[in-house]
Amino acid sequence: MKRRSGAVPAAWCLACLFALAAGAVADDREMVSEIFRTALAEGRTHQLLRELCLRYPHRLSGSPESEAANRWVKTVMEERGLEVRLQEVMVPYWERGDTMVVEVAVDGRTEALSALALGGSVGTPVGGLEAPVIEVDSLEQVEALGETGIEGRIVFFNRALDQGRVRHFEAYMGAADQRVSGAAMAGRFGAVAVLVRSLSFLDDDYPHTGGLRYEEGVRQIPAAAISVRAANRLSLLLSASPQLRVSILMNCRQREDQVSHNVIGELKGSVHPDEYITIGAHFDAWDVGEGAQDNGSGSMQSIEAVYLLQELGYEFRRSVRVVMFANEEYLVGQPFRGGQVYAEEALKKGEKHYAAIETDAGAFTPRGFGVEGPPAMVERVRSWLEYFDTDNTVHYVAEGGGGPEIWVLNELLGTPTFDLRTDTQRYLDFHHSDNDTFDKVNRRELELGTAAMASLLYLIDTHGLTEQPDAER
Amino acid sequence: MKRRSGAVPAAWCLACLFALAAGAVADDREMVSEIFRTALAEGRTHQLLRELCLRYPHRLSGSPESEAANRWVKTVMEERGLEVRLQEVMVPYWERGDTMVVEVAVDGRTEALSALALGGSVGTPVGGLEAPVIEVDSLEQVEALGETGIEGRIVFFNRALDQGRVRHFEAYMGAADQRVSGAAMAGRFGAVAVLVRSLSFLDDDYPHTGGLRYEEGVRQIPAAAISVRAANRLSLLLSASPQLRVSILMNCRQREDQVSHNVIGELKGSVHPDEYITIGAHFDAWDVGEGAQDNGSGSMQSIEAVYLLQELGYEFRRSVRVVMFANEEYLVGQPFRGGQVYAEEALKKGEKHYAAIETDAGAFTPRGFGVEGPPAMVERVRSWLEYFDTDNTVHYVAEGGGGPEIWVLNELLGTPTFDLRTDTQRYLDFHHSDNDTFDKVNRRELELGTAAMASLLYLIDTHGLTEQPDAER
Repeated sequence: MKRRSGAVPAAWCLACLFALAAGAVADDREMVSEIFRTALAEGRTHQLLRELCLRYPHRLSGSPESEAANRWVKTVMEERGLEVRLQEVMVPYWERGDTMVVEVAVDGRTEALSALALGGSVGTPVGGLEAPVIEVDSLEQVEALGETGIEGRIVFFNRALDQGRVRHFEAYMGAADQRVSGAAMAGRFGAVAVLVRSLSFLDDDYPHTGGLRYEEGVRQIPAAAISVRAANRLSLLLSASPQLRVSILMNCRQREDQVSHNVIGELKGSVHPDEYITIGAHFDAWDVGEGAQDNGSGSMQSIEAVYLLQELGYEFRRSVRVVMFANEEYLVGQPFRGGQVYAEEALKKGEKHYAAIETDAGAFTPRGFGVEGPPAMVERVRSWLEYFDTDNTVHYVAEGGGGPEIWVLNELLGTPTFDLRTDTQRYLDFHHSDNDTFDKVNRRELELGTAAMASLLYLIDTHGLTEQPDAER
Repeated sequence: MKRRSGAVPAAWCLACLFALAAGAVADDREMVSEIFRTALAEGRTHQLLRELCLRYPHRLSGSPESEAANRWVKTVMEERGLEVRLQEVMVPYWERGDTMVVEVAVDGRTEALSALALGGSVGTPVGGLEAPVIEVDSLEQVEALGETGIEGRIVFFNRALDQGRVRHFEAYMGAADQRVSGAAMAGRFGAVAVLVRSLSFLDDDYPHTGGLRYEEGVRQIPAAAISVRAANRLSLLLSASPQLRVSILMNCRQREDQVSHNVIGELKGSVHPDEYITIGAHFDAWDVGEGAQDNGSGSMQSIEAVYLLQELGYEFRRSVRVVMFANEEYLVGQPFRGGQVYAEEALKKGEKHYAAIETDAGAFTPRGFGVEGPPAMVERVRSWLEYFDTDNTVHYVAEGGGGPEIWVLNELLGTPTFDLRTDTQRYLDFHHSDNDTFDKVNRRELELGTAAMASLLYLIDTHGLTEQPDAER
């Protein structure tokens, strides 16, 4: 790595620095290429992510572990020369507890099904509950069955992801309503609990958690995800014995809201210090696995993207803020509070937010950028694709971009927002489960993501997002 | 899966079949989309690859295992309705033997280094050999050291892959000369053996084998790959104790050439039965791991790509040949014999080979196609990209394509050749090592590759590779 204070050995770098020093636009293709080369050869995102996953695997907003992770990441950013502050964010706080049992009685013996309470779920009574099971494949089916079919039962939502979708997110959205609204719908008709098939493409035994949303005025009933294997098993058992009874015991609970924090690291710009470019990611994670792909990778990439440019000798024209956002995962139907607080403060202070970049797409090979901005801006960003190795890295720019952490900036201040798109075929294999651990992250794919974010940040800062006279640049 | 003889439930299919029946061009975007949907939802490449890896993990050309695999794959193709024959191919035959030990004496004890003989290497004397080690990072350095520096020593080639390369193949080619020609160069100056750092991006303990090439008239010396971890360890030990001695014992050996086979499955075309489109892959694999990525995946994808189209009710206009090519991995400096024999027979018989498609890029998300043909043909294929989900699958068409299995067809008959390009960041993690096993293959990424190949085959067969009057189509 070429340290700013050290020697500058590479040929490109002499050329670039000369160009920068002369006030000219550097050869952007060479610069982007060097960003990728350096990230792959010397990037430290992988090592940083390893440390995060090892030290603070569970980072659910509001938890003491999450606040410890915030303190750690503050020092990480300070070590990289950023001026760091903690911004208070009130967040909901839910505790998983230490007991999660789903059992089914088969042929006189008891069989356990792999399960995880859904985030936000109430617990069962202290002694647990036991009831017959009704298997359904949609919210509509619950409505159609009504009280007669539902009351006193455990409702088992077993609609699988549509494997036929190329885009994982379409498959996810096509089944997620069971997890998010299943408990509310079943509760309305008198169910005693809900089991939901995990939102995973794999036929394995990892249950995948995620948030649910209760409905105002409807009795809150316990809800848990069971693994795909457990769902297939339960379905098979039910087809043989429809009268089968399942028992559930879990002691998760909702607690008082807590003070959490956005962690904000700032670097002053040399030309437009009053204009901010935000680059960041949600730093909270579920309390299972290590939150490696979701979203340890995106958080560490955001930090290292900025550091990589600094180490390459790039001097930011605008001020850059690296933000570790609180509270994306667990919301209980409220807005993403980390992004909300960040944008509201910016509005109140009258700050000028030039652009905001986020990522939450896992540590996979980058493929594109999303852009939330006027068509001319999308076109402008698209024209930058010529600087990339499009066969192997970033090759498209899509209209519509950003994410819940930064959309509020767009709504309140009109800030254009951006996000990184990756090859997400494996994303749901890990998502919200004990399978989301550091060892599943490929170093090169992770560092390529850092390089893609650094390149976008560099191009936005250097070229600007609109045509402008040279004097203003 | 929609069986040809069964019901045709999907809306697209009615439309497609109607269009096909009416002799019109079907809606290609819908067809390609349906190919991908069906491959992801119902594809069986994954299951077929599982069976191959389980039954015939080692498929080195000339070995009895390889011939058993050929017989198995013949029945697989026959079950899918192809007319199958075995085409004789004489291949070199090398045996790894059952002993491979590399040991270094450290502080009075012996430490083993993970090693694999390079394909084609001679064995050591029966009692093994022991010698001091000279670490080098290039063939040129060996030349510069000459007999004085090299004679009587084990030459340790330790130049690492350039991690900074985005394209894995550039990194590979930047270091592979050590493996291919290290033994010949070191042998020329009197070395007793060669150890080569594995061609892998990972810092793990898997040694990666691969072929070497001895030089006419130069003494053949034993050569083995050691894992990246072992290479780093040996280098560290040498820097502390340059007089260190290493012992090597291996009983691999070159045997007589053997009769092996290309396995060729044929399906008659309905409009141009005398024009052939070949789709295939090398079916041989190294005798370590399971050859899952290299090239079990490509072989099984080739078979399933054709079967997928058949099951979707597509009737091929041209005759299609699915070919499992012999002898890509182990060559000892000769041409790829499987491809050679296939093309020579085609030439002798005066066959018309319209196009040939191969893949050897691993079971990763598809990104593009390579095309070996005139510029207008490349442009024509590029225009088909509009039928693909380019954000998530195939998005580019490159000039130059094919592979050693089918390039001979291009040379002898002028056949345009094609290959599938994938996201290969993880390719070298597995390549030629015990790490190349079925469990590392992601089902969705594998089936997407099948779908990409099926789509290309469909588009070539339907549209043709040149502008032509409707009457000829």
